Amino acid sequence: MEISARNKFKGTIEEITLGSVMAKVKINIGNGNVISSVITIESVTDLKLKVGDVVYAIVKSTEVMIGK
Amino acid sequence: MEISARNKFKGTIEEITLGSVMAKVKINIGNGNVISSVITIESVTDLKLKVGDVVYAIVKSTEVMIGK
Amino acid sequence: MEISARNKFKGTIEEITLGSVMAKVKINIGNGNVISSVITIESVTDLKLKVGDVVYAIVKSTEVMIGK
Amino acid sequence: MEISARNKFKGTIEEITLGSVMAKVKINIGNGNVISSVITIESVTDLKLKVGDVVYAIVKSTEVMIGK
Amino acid sequence: MEISARNKFKGTIEEITLGSVMAKVKINIGNGNVISSVITIESVTDLKLKVGDVVYAIVKSTEVMIGK
Amino acid sequence: MEISARNKFKGTIEEITLGSVMAKVKINIGNGNVISSVITIESVTDLKLKVGDVVYAIVKSTEVMIGK
Repeated sequence: MEISARNKFKGTIEEITLGSVMAKVKINIGNGNVISSVITIESVTDLKLKVGDVVYAIVKSTEVMIGK
Repeated sequence: MEISARNKFKGTIEEITLGSVMAKVKINIGNGNVISSVITIESVTDLKLKVGDVVYAIVKSTEVMIGK
Repeated sequence: MEISARNKFKGTIEEITLGSVMAKVKINIGNGNVISSVITIESVTDLKLKVGDVVYAIVKSTEVMIGK
Repeated sequence: MEISARNKFKGTIEEITLGSVMAKVKINIGNGNVISSVITIESVTDLKLKVGDVVYAIVKSTEVMIGK
Repeated sequence: MEISARNKFKGTIEEITLGSVMAKVKINIGNGNVISSVITIESVTDLKLKVGDVVYAIVKSTEVMIGK
Repeated sequence: MEISARNKFKGTIEEITLGSVMAKVKINIGNGNVISSVITIESVTDLKLKVGDVVYAIVKSTEVMIGK
């Protein structure tokens, strides 16, 4: 399945912090950039996410702001 | 001003496409990664954004999904 | 690729309205429910979306509100 | 009050999972589709949400992606 | 209908800019604060929005960032 | 740094509720309006947010709905 979201960055999971409903996942996409993602624990379980996994961080273009 | 959004990626504007209300801005953040952002034309004007500008792409963690 | 977004609804594209940067796509997911999506024209082109296509409407759980 | 969000799906609450700040709510909208929503516990309390309630899942069009 | 979104600010529409698919609406909520909203033209038409209308600007808590 | 997000409201933090991954922050922006924000605890710590701080609530225009 191809997705309409314009931003897909390949990286490696560096850290997973589990809360009670939500989890925070840190993904290293290279060049010194680490992306922070907050998803449900249900998603972490379903995708069997663990540190070291190669994954994609995905962001819809309408969610990206610009600072200057 | 420091912002709570966890994701701030420094890059260079490669392309700006102006629509009637919204604009699409492409930011090269290195390592082969280009971020696509959709913001208002009003923001493009206010921040005086132009191709070649060094800017930050900013994304709130709750907006980042993971694909595996 | 499997995605962390919890909401994936299979449906058929009923209508595509192209703007200058953004496009509006209506997807019939059955049971009288039609989902409206606003994505970039670039995505419509890249995914070769057209009326009649069977697609998935995808929504991150944190974007769903509840009305009662 | 009528709301600008284009997507309003009527359904029945199947499950509520309470975290410490956020809660996950599953809404069955028929045709085999279950919508997952993450809202504050404060909202769950204020709207007195409980399993079996008939509610609306509401999503802004700009938050809907398409997969093909 | 009551909505789970925590932020509902009453104000008056000051300006509507119509694009081809999206529209920008400015809402004065008092105390010198003007909220900018980008919604579909379809929503502007369905809600019969016009300058001078008293409306509510509605924002889900997960969409609010903090700058300091 | 100036940000593209159109909505920046100055206010005072009234309340911070810490969860396990996420935190809820209430900001009084005057005129009887209190904005509710859900951000990561990591952001609360990094920005050293505490009750009484003068901060900005920031919202991208595409995240603002209208009710009438």
